[in-house]
Amino acid sequence: MYGNKAYLNCVAREQASQVWLERLEATGYFENIPVERIAVTNALGRVTAACLYAAQSVPHYNGSAMDGVAVLAEDTFGTSDTRPLKLNILKGDQAYQNGGCYIVDTGDLLPEGTNAVIMIEDTNISEGQAEITAAAAPWQHVRIIGEDIVQHELILPEHHIITPVDIAALLAAGLEEIETLARPVVTVIPTGTELVADRRHLKPGTILDVNSHMLCAAVSTWGAEARRHTIVIDDYQAIKQAVSESLACSDMVVMNAGTSAGTEDYTAKVLAELGEVLVHGVAIKPGKPVVLAVCQGKPVVGLPGYPVSAMLTAELFVKVVLTARQKLTQHNSVKVKAKLSKQVYSNIGVEEYIRVSLGNVQGKTMAAPLGRGASLISSLTKAHGMLTVGRANDGISAGSEVVVSLLGNNNSENNLLAVGSHDLALDLLGVHLRRKAQRTLSCANVGSMGGIMAVRSDEAHIAGIHMLDEQTGQYNTSFVKKYLSQSNWQLVHLGMREQGLMVAPGNPKKILELADLIRPDVIFVNRQRGSGTRMLLDYQLKKLGLDYRNIKGYEKEVGTHMAVGATVIGKAADVGLGIRAAARALGLDFIPVADEQYDLILNLAAEDKQAEVIIEILKSTDFRRNVEALGGYDLTFAGNLIAKSGQ
Amino acid sequence: MYGNKAYLNCVAREQASQVWLERLEATGYFENIPVERIAVTNALGRVTAACLYAAQSVPHYNGSAMDGVAVLAEDTFGTSDTRPLKLNILKGDQAYQNGGCYIVDTGDLLPEGTNAVIMIEDTNISEGQAEITAAAAPWQHVRIIGEDIVQHELILPEHHIITPVDIAALLAAGLEEIETLARPVVTVIPTGTELVADRRHLKPGTILDVNSHMLCAAVSTWGAEARRHTIVIDDYQAIKQAVSESLACSDMVVMNAGTSAGTEDYTAKVLAELGEVLVHGVAIKPGKPVVLAVCQGKPVVGLPGYPVSAMLTAELFVKVVLTARQKLTQHNSVKVKAKLSKQVYSNIGVEEYIRVSLGNVQGKTMAAPLGRGASLISSLTKAHGMLTVGRANDGISAGSEVVVSLLGNNNSENNLLAVGSHDLALDLLGVHLRRKAQRTLSCANVGSMGGIMAVRSDEAHIAGIHMLDEQTGQYNTSFVKKYLSQSNWQLVHLGMREQGLMVAPGNPKKILELADLIRPDVIFVNRQRGSGTRMLLDYQLKKLGLDYRNIKGYEKEVGTHMAVGATVIGKAADVGLGIRAAARALGLDFIPVADEQYDLILNLAAEDKQAEVIIEILKSTDFRRNVEALGGYDLTFAGNLIAKSGQ
Repeated sequence: MYGNKAYLNCVAREQASQVWLERLEATGYFENIPVERIAVTNALGRVTAACLYAAQSVPHYNGSAMDGVAVLAEDTFGTSDTRPLKLNILKGDQAYQNGGCYIVDTGDLLPEGTNAVIMIEDTNISEGQAEITAAAAPWQHVRIIGEDIVQHELILPEHHIITPVDIAALLAAGLEEIETLARPVVTVIPTGTELVADRRHLKPGTILDVNSHMLCAAVSTWGAEARRHTIVIDDYQAIKQAVSESLACSDMVVMNAGTSAGTEDYTAKVLAELGEVLVHGVAIKPGKPVVLAVCQGKPVVGLPGYPVSAMLTAELFVKVVLTARQKLTQHNSVKVKAKLSKQVYSNIGVEEYIRVSLGNVQGKTMAAPLGRGASLISSLTKAHGMLTVGRANDGISAGSEVVVSLLGNNNSENNLLAVGSHDLALDLLGVHLRRKAQRTLSCANVGSMGGIMAVRSDEAHIAGIHMLDEQTGQYNTSFVKKYLSQSNWQLVHLGMREQGLMVAPGNPKKILELADLIRPDVIFVNRQRGSGTRMLLDYQLKKLGLDYRNIKGYEKEVGTHMAVGATVIGKAADVGLGIRAAARALGLDFIPVADEQYDLILNLAAEDKQAEVIIEILKSTDFRRNVEALGGYDLTFAGNLIAKSGQ
Repeated sequence: MYGNKAYLNCVAREQASQVWLERLEATGYFENIPVERIAVTNALGRVTAACLYAAQSVPHYNGSAMDGVAVLAEDTFGTSDTRPLKLNILKGDQAYQNGGCYIVDTGDLLPEGTNAVIMIEDTNISEGQAEITAAAAPWQHVRIIGEDIVQHELILPEHHIITPVDIAALLAAGLEEIETLARPVVTVIPTGTELVADRRHLKPGTILDVNSHMLCAAVSTWGAEARRHTIVIDDYQAIKQAVSESLACSDMVVMNAGTSAGTEDYTAKVLAELGEVLVHGVAIKPGKPVVLAVCQGKPVVGLPGYPVSAMLTAELFVKVVLTARQKLTQHNSVKVKAKLSKQVYSNIGVEEYIRVSLGNVQGKTMAAPLGRGASLISSLTKAHGMLTVGRANDGISAGSEVVVSLLGNNNSENNLLAVGSHDLALDLLGVHLRRKAQRTLSCANVGSMGGIMAVRSDEAHIAGIHMLDEQTGQYNTSFVKKYLSQSNWQLVHLGMREQGLMVAPGNPKKILELADLIRPDVIFVNRQRGSGTRMLLDYQLKKLGLDYRNIKGYEKEVGTHMAVGATVIGKAADVGLGIRAAARALGLDFIPVADEQYDLILNLAAEDKQAEVIIEILKSTDFRRNVEALGGYDLTFAGNLIAKSGQ
């Protein structure tokens, strides 16, 4: 009986897959797939159910392969420059007679009695006669029946995905309708009392059902016909009914979620009643609470609730079954070797999947790990690839060579990596780069100092920085010169921007200046160490003689200006330091503290002209207007070169 | 004025593309693309028209990230194993009071007044109290508003193809409808008086219109909405009207064909009247007669009529425009290096595209050129990749390293190359290999001797041979031992098969034995030199004392048994030598001449077990029955090892 936690027993991924597929195999799930007879003209992307053989030959008659005159070759033997021959031109409806010929166009039926074609350019036609000056070989310039395809020849093998050229070959070979494997029908059942289908019904504590739409889209890209069930609440009977009904009209059922071991997680219990649960719990992260079952001879899978977990486990377990059911070759995703830009940790005994963005920096491919939370949808949309940390591994150190499985259609070759301080203008730079240079831009927000370090070790193309040198009162230049010794960098100005305190609309705590941060009723949210904003804060506090230890929340760090603003909106803090553009975007009040200089270090090979393109974008009116519209920016000198290596 | 041939002036491909795209660019064709507002749930595969920003934060409230108790962290400070703390469990509707806590599930709204969650496993709950033994840090196990996505953050850039995870991110970020680029509408117009739409109307001299269906399928895979026009006859006014009407309701028009310089080739003339013809004739093969025009600011392309030419030129010229129109990155196809297995010739001044099949033999990738005729649809369905011979090149010699662009979804890694004698059983072996080992099989038919030579130079995995040693009266073994010195081959028996004379049904020429071949009224069709069938013929002729010079058609060679049969059906010959299975498939009469032994040389690395799988297939009842059903085969000893290297 289900009900305690012991059953969530975490087998290895390979073992989980194997035991499930073997049981499905044993039930005959991969045999006798229903077929569907469809018109060849509608068959693009469908899978052939059986070998397809030609019903007719191509070409289906002996025809002229040229514009010319059709002759009996034997009539022309002995002809040469010095012994030209005149042939009588016969009408199409006249029977062949010795010494006769017919005018033919390419594709015309070779007239009865003839067996060769002489190109029109090699004849001299006048007064009903064609003069030739060379003999014709039998069957020259004739397309013989079956030259391309002979009747009964194999055109396509069974279980082949039909392409545009296959359609042409099938039609030409006389096939108009063919049998294809029916698309497997997959029903996706979203379960959860907390789920709502319509964002207008969203309130705190409820979650919009997005996974079922994502999963339906995913299974449709894997060749299945997806059906989305309505949301089912966490109720044993309701879930049981939904699964039973779905099983009756589907080839596979995907449940999401209720797969964990909580009191309201009914997925495994229901499936154990309706069939057999083979696996509950797989030693992977994210995605551990997976349920693999067979009910009425059909696969039923329960996927975990967080979007990243749901998608990853769907790739691992749903795709493999659909591929086998459609008799397709399991394609391994394309893999590339890359250098890991940041240490990742993992648990021994768990296979962990890390999303990464990729970029080619100074000749080597860098893999930058993205946010790892199972709840972070954004990390999936930004990922170029997936890195697996094996069960025997407790992590991978920075700089290691790793193997990354590429995701979908990503063109990571053309991706530029921006590692450093976060600025909203970088998103816009990405948009303009895409337009101008068909380049994408991935941003890893690690603060200004992290950006300098990434460039120093050739792990980033671009680093956004805003670091105030307390000694000189100048921004950025001294740091770049101090830390970057390699030969290729340029420091280019992006803009001046306003930093200030972000507070809730109406400023309920009446925060007017930095000194208010040490008030006991004020909770602050900080930026991470090494970020320019943190450096600015510490500099200003020191200047004002304020002790950071008196600031409540000083130790709470987040990674971006927007995250600072979100923390204030979520009331997890009353105030944080950030740029005006973020405050404006989020509808927060803003108390200016300082103007600061935000520059870009460009670490791009001189030969590929990318630096020029970026500088051109920075100087363009379009880009300037876009950024200044965010609020708090002055891009008057954007694109100016501030310093470069070797000077 | 059009009307002579001088205008077909053959510019280079790059130049043709450039001049056309530049003109389209100048007319604004790539600007102001119409947008279509669609539901996010229907947006899979569509292209974003603009950058998409979050309408709400994700999560949209501060929630518990665990099942546990929500507390005010400050209440727990000082708690430890030795100083446990009991908190009063409050009901959800009770206001927070000091020392209180709430039971929460994952995803629940964090109750007002609390700022941390303690995992349920770390608490001891009894009598309305939760006992804890460690302090909680503020905001531990809490998902803060905007942790994943902050309102107004960029979710997807403009001109991005929407994937399943993007759908999840968009929905979660509060977007229900988005603007996508309208799919470009492409109308394909089949032109030609010789074309018929229905194969029931097919007769000699007419051609089934297959290209328009192929082209519609192709443009739909390139993101366009394809519309197929009905067939238009070769009539200037009819074509002009079809183009005018299509232009009015399309973003692009594809005409096929009428692009050459013949008297009935109206495409270029019509387009010159309706707009501007920028290119007529590109220096490529196949595909030279391409017309690139701009009419009413829209691209109109005329593609040549042979299917291979039509498809290749569509890839070169239609795809590039559709990609640019949809603002997508031009993806270069994946390229692999390979060793060319056979010399190819080309013309200086012409860029030639050669279809090849690929296979990995003993660690190196081999590229085997396929049939080169522009009319050979079968060469497109069989091709794994395309090899380009540059304009400055008159060919590439066998053994050269070449770069092959992979086509579509081909999994050539899993492809086995069979080079050698043609036998219908090889097609069936391919079918079984696919089923049993997810391997495909490509056959190049070069005759038995060609097969031995291909294995000798490690250019084939499998060679089918049937070579009679006149001295020993035995088949195959002596040749294999003589020519193959490398270490890995096995010679495995496939079957005995009947060779004989194929003649038209009813045997109109009353051919009864080989001696009839020298009759003056009998025309023969031969197989190529080096083929086992040719060797058998020559051996039998010699035995009978017949002089091959007396055989009419002895010099006409074709490459397969089926081609011999097709030649007889096409009346280009009265008789040919081939296997009973081919005669039976084609409904020809068959006069037995000899039984012969057909064996396979397997050249497969011992470690990958492929040889074992093949032998298993050969010995299986399934395979035996399938082959014997073709007629004329005896597979009693199929799969028996006849000889192997080193013995």
